[in-house]
Amino acid sequence: MNVINIDLGDRTYEILVGENIDLVQSLNGIVSDFRVAVIVTNVIVAGYHLDRVRNSLARIFEDVRVIELPDGESHKSWDSLNNIFNSLLSWQCDRKTTLFALGGGVVGDLTGFAAATYMRGIPFVQLPTTLLAQVDSSVGGKTAINHPLGKNMIGAFYQPQLVICDFCTLSTLPDRELRAGLAEVIKYGPIADIAFMEWLEQNLNAVMAKEAAALAHVVQRSCEIKAWVVSKDEKESGLRAILNFGHTFGHAIEAGMGYGVWLHGEGVSAGMVMAAELSRRLGLVDADFVRRLISLIQLAGLPTKGPVLDANDNAGRYLELMRIDKKAEAGEIRFVVIDGPGRALVRSAPDSLVREVIDACCE
Amino acid sequence: MNVINIDLGDRTYEILVGENIDLVQSLNGIVSDFRVAVIVTNVIVAGYHLDRVRNSLARIFEDVRVIELPDGESHKSWDSLNNIFNSLLSWQCDRKTTLFALGGGVVGDLTGFAAATYMRGIPFVQLPTTLLAQVDSSVGGKTAINHPLGKNMIGAFYQPQLVICDFCTLSTLPDRELRAGLAEVIKYGPIADIAFMEWLEQNLNAVMAKEAAALAHVVQRSCEIKAWVVSKDEKESGLRAILNFGHTFGHAIEAGMGYGVWLHGEGVSAGMVMAAELSRRLGLVDADFVRRLISLIQLAGLPTKGPVLDANDNAGRYLELMRIDKKAEAGEIRFVVIDGPGRALVRSAPDSLVREVIDACCE
Repeated sequence: MNVINIDLGDRTYEILVGENIDLVQSLNGIVSDFRVAVIVTNVIVAGYHLDRVRNSLARIFEDVRVIELPDGESHKSWDSLNNIFNSLLSWQCDRKTTLFALGGGVVGDLTGFAAATYMRGIPFVQLPTTLLAQVDSSVGGKTAINHPLGKNMIGAFYQPQLVICDFCTLSTLPDRELRAGLAEVIKYGPIADIAFMEWLEQNLNAVMAKEAAALAHVVQRSCEIKAWVVSKDEKESGLRAILNFGHTFGHAIEAGMGYGVWLHGEGVSAGMVMAAELSRRLGLVDADFVRRLISLIQLAGLPTKGPVLDANDNAGRYLELMRIDKKAEAGEIRFVVIDGPGRALVRSAPDSLVREVIDACCE
Repeated sequence: MNVINIDLGDRTYEILVGENIDLVQSLNGIVSDFRVAVIVTNVIVAGYHLDRVRNSLARIFEDVRVIELPDGESHKSWDSLNNIFNSLLSWQCDRKTTLFALGGGVVGDLTGFAAATYMRGIPFVQLPTTLLAQVDSSVGGKTAINHPLGKNMIGAFYQPQLVICDFCTLSTLPDRELRAGLAEVIKYGPIADIAFMEWLEQNLNAVMAKEAAALAHVVQRSCEIKAWVVSKDEKESGLRAILNFGHTFGHAIEAGMGYGVWLHGEGVSAGMVMAAELSRRLGLVDADFVRRLISLIQLAGLPTKGPVLDANDNAGRYLELMRIDKKAEAGEIRFVVIDGPGRALVRSAPDSLVREVIDACCE
């Protein structure tokens, strides 16, 4: 088992990366009150992992409760959040109750936001079960729900007490979800570590075959890069925005298609191609780099073209959706672009150029 | 004009206390982006103060928008919060938009929570227009909405950029609201400053007549005490809980009667008598002190007896409602009691004793 530290002053915490990690031992010194644990999960994940987690927690908590949500991005909503509040209040949970987010990004973001806002904040632990959650969403304290007018529009920065990335959960992960998680893994290369991109080019098959050593390296290195970025800029006043490489276009795809039709990682994949192509047209990277990124995304079985969101004015629809991105300022969309391999920056671009990119990258 | 500092590291901010404070000048160096200001207020306050504030902001912001909510505690709800989100999103407000909370505690708590959670946090400024908000709720970063199962159950600690307590708004405040605000003023004496309690005993008539010097002292001293407590314990891990003197019983009254039937300060007044009586029965203060507090509350025209919430088992109903108080732990209610005049502590008490207190203090 490896330990990665997220250094955030009095909100510092650890990410544990390994296989079959002992949950009981891991919570030692992390949780201070062992009366009530509440596991928030979804119906699919519960079938695979709930018994194991519940049994472990029952060894140290007096009372272990479970909230099972429906599966899917469309349930990352106020209704689900309110379901959690209703349960916590009806069980008379107090400020010392610890929430455990057992699931992927939806469960983690939603549970984290519930923890951030129930009685103005209670402790929570992330138990990510998908690759996407292990390499990205469970780390760094971004919590949120979706609003009909935009993804992750309502949320808070709120750090967990601990994140446990256990590969044992990845064995039951459907292939499509594994691939979607790889999008967030692939992202780290172009923005921060070109050697990691090279490693992926050589080892992606081993990762997709879920070989333990390969998964270990992927989760470990991704968490290290994310921890480094988040420690430098917790609340995204600057550097942290580079983690959204591919996400500006990707969020537009997700929203435009209806949440859940394209998985987040699928939207981000097509979005990374668009962002790389935009970088090329801005003169920041060459065509070889764009082709290289496209090849890696293809190798992962992920989309390299965006969907047509509007047959009459596709680029216009993308632009409209992107203007409500959280990075936008004064209606000006901010893009994460690659400023040479392994280095990213955030900037705006002329609408006309963005339109050309969208036209070239959709089908 | 006086300036009080709330010392919270990188979240430090100022409270300005005075009459006819220049809003434009006050925002100098506080707001960094002058594109969009959104004033959140209610229909009653808007009639008195909106034009003045909007005209001032229009001198420095390119675009000033207004969200008018219905009046009253019953609107401190998810529905109102979502109305704010809908407006902000439809206006394409970004992370640099500043919210201005123009109103009393409901507007301030709700606007603060909207600012805390819109796009994971945007800047906001408190412009409290009631005595209660000026001496208590606008200061210290507690934001929240009510849940049908409990008051302020959903919220966040989120500090404003600035608080402006301008007495000019108190001239239009209805007498009942002024009195309700006095409950939070009276509270500071028993818990922290017995000299302030003496001053109030001698000067309460001047305060109720809204004499400028008296109001100035009341707001100034209240904010000083609150700033001292909050600076020591921002997130209520200890000391800050003493500010809830009278609130455990008071919240039960508010919830039991239905939010808005008793004003917050009215519930707190009867609650302070109960908490003082509990302190006496625990041997912490003498009967003279309880009588003195009751006299001061009576002088302010506030209730000294709680309502009967359940004719069959009144004390049982109070206890049931108090068990979901945020200070409760393991179903054990935590009371703020007076440990000698000017000093408070938080502790539990036997149900039987609490029942006696409730029986003695309701009518």
